[in-house]
Amino acid sequence: MINRSYAILGTGALGGFYGARLQQAGLDVHFLLRSDYEYVKQHGLVVESPEGNFTLPQVHAYKNVDQMPNCDVIVVALKTTQNYLLPELLPHFKNPNSIFLVLQNGLGIEPKVAEIVGNKLVMGGLCFLCSNKVGAGHIRHLDYGTITLGEYSAHYQPSGISDRLREIANDFESAGIPIVISEDLLLARWKKLVWNIPYNGLSVVLDARTDELMVNADTRILVEKLMWEVVAGAKSCDRTIPDDFIPKMLDYTDKMKPYRTSMKLDYDRKQRLEVEAIFGNPLQMAEQSGVNLPLIDMLYRQLKFLDVRECK
Amino acid sequence: MINRSYAILGTGALGGFYGARLQQAGLDVHFLLRSDYEYVKQHGLVVESPEGNFTLPQVHAYKNVDQMPNCDVIVVALKTTQNYLLPELLPHFKNPNSIFLVLQNGLGIEPKVAEIVGNKLVMGGLCFLCSNKVGAGHIRHLDYGTITLGEYSAHYQPSGISDRLREIANDFESAGIPIVISEDLLLARWKKLVWNIPYNGLSVVLDARTDELMVNADTRILVEKLMWEVVAGAKSCDRTIPDDFIPKMLDYTDKMKPYRTSMKLDYDRKQRLEVEAIFGNPLQMAEQSGVNLPLIDMLYRQLKFLDVRECK
Repeated sequence: MINRSYAILGTGALGGFYGARLQQAGLDVHFLLRSDYEYVKQHGLVVESPEGNFTLPQVHAYKNVDQMPNCDVIVVALKTTQNYLLPELLPHFKNPNSIFLVLQNGLGIEPKVAEIVGNKLVMGGLCFLCSNKVGAGHIRHLDYGTITLGEYSAHYQPSGISDRLREIANDFESAGIPIVISEDLLLARWKKLVWNIPYNGLSVVLDARTDELMVNADTRILVEKLMWEVVAGAKSCDRTIPDDFIPKMLDYTDKMKPYRTSMKLDYDRKQRLEVEAIFGNPLQMAEQSGVNLPLIDMLYRQLKFLDVRECK
Repeated sequence: MINRSYAILGTGALGGFYGARLQQAGLDVHFLLRSDYEYVKQHGLVVESPEGNFTLPQVHAYKNVDQMPNCDVIVVALKTTQNYLLPELLPHFKNPNSIFLVLQNGLGIEPKVAEIVGNKLVMGGLCFLCSNKVGAGHIRHLDYGTITLGEYSAHYQPSGISDRLREIANDFESAGIPIVISEDLLLARWKKLVWNIPYNGLSVVLDARTDELMVNADTRILVEKLMWEVVAGAKSCDRTIPDDFIPKMLDYTDKMKPYRTSMKLDYDRKQRLEVEAIFGNPLQMAEQSGVNLPLIDMLYRQLKFLDVRECK
């Protein structure tokens, strides 16, 4: 096995967790940091996890992308609200064989990455992860961690499963991260939105946990209507989400512990909301096929109003 | 001029104001009260108003409808959230010539009143009034006061202008209340909803004043989309609101002072919201004609969620 090198752009709850696990598994990992740089440079990373706590007393920490080596895999682990940095960060990695792996929410980011990096390979990953950054270089992994990986090709055409995708999957699996491989990244992203759009959106607008939204008859109906609009959005991109997926998602959420969504956590911390990746881009993609999603559009505009007001 | 007698059911910011003005003009007015009964019985009513402060040291106050005389005009001035009391209150007034005047928000109340009072005359009034109850028997009138009056006939068929409508209009005008007479009560109610639905609804869900909703590009678009749905709702009842009405309402709101809507005031005081009269009934009326109003429906469900949670 070749010891691939990884650049982690964004060492937060997500990038910090996956990067630390890869380094712990023996891979060569390089972390880009901003506010935590000095601390992590000196003290490394700490990960608490129900799967085992561990410390990495020494990590390759960088404050500036220009000092980073030409890694094999560049993991985009920023919040999508930081994506305005990508045109400045990504061109640094000039190795023609570099692979760019987008571990972000929502959809529509891979095409933008592909535009920046030219004809290099772009992949996307959907992370099903509960993790928080609780201090500088200190990550608390709460639950889950599976990544659904898929290769991106122009306009999200389904692109099969290449050897290089399998190799990256193997790296993550060697670090104890469960991997699901998808031949159709766009379908995988739309399916994840079936959950993310109603619960993230309504949890912020109505200041509510998932269980509150499920118990009230009106919001439960709204959740379901929003889910059907996501299915219509997928359909507008020629992707079919089967009809039984929605009752499954509702049932799954009924059984979850009362949960504050990630967007609600961001909102309560007065951080920018990932409205464009999770709402704006899907709306735009559907609109390009002439399909309106009126309820999602309404939720999107309500969120933008709240986002702008809270994060001036 | 016959000195008509008026029963005011609900002596709050609205009923107290109009009733006091009618009494001040020499009409025979009888007030139904609940919590303020003892105080008002002893001290009467106080009205502060930019049009002149006045005191009525003595009023006919009642705690129980059974003690009220058989008035000529019975004014329903409760909040619509109290309308579950109507089947108990209205049958007391047995005079076959009594007129029932509904001074409430939204639509769909007159048919219910007509059902209770049988073939007696029912009228509706839309009050354009800024007024607060600031203490027991103490009303602070802030601005406006015009009432648009219309006669109700079965299924809101337009019913022209009867002499009895004119007589009531004259009574109010003699009390200094500007009156607009409408030949089509349902059209008048739908037109008022063009303003009430977007601003009342969004002000509660987004915790926002009218000016905030107008300045933000996203909520301004939402306001306008909701207004167009109200126009579609009116259309489903064969009522035409002219196209230039919406730009006029937007322009009018742009020029208003920053304003907390009445529903937002109710919400902040943890009072029940008038969701059924302002949202539920119009939605139902449109649905009976096979017309869906998806954005209004979404706002309605969001409001019901908040209403139930805040007013347990």
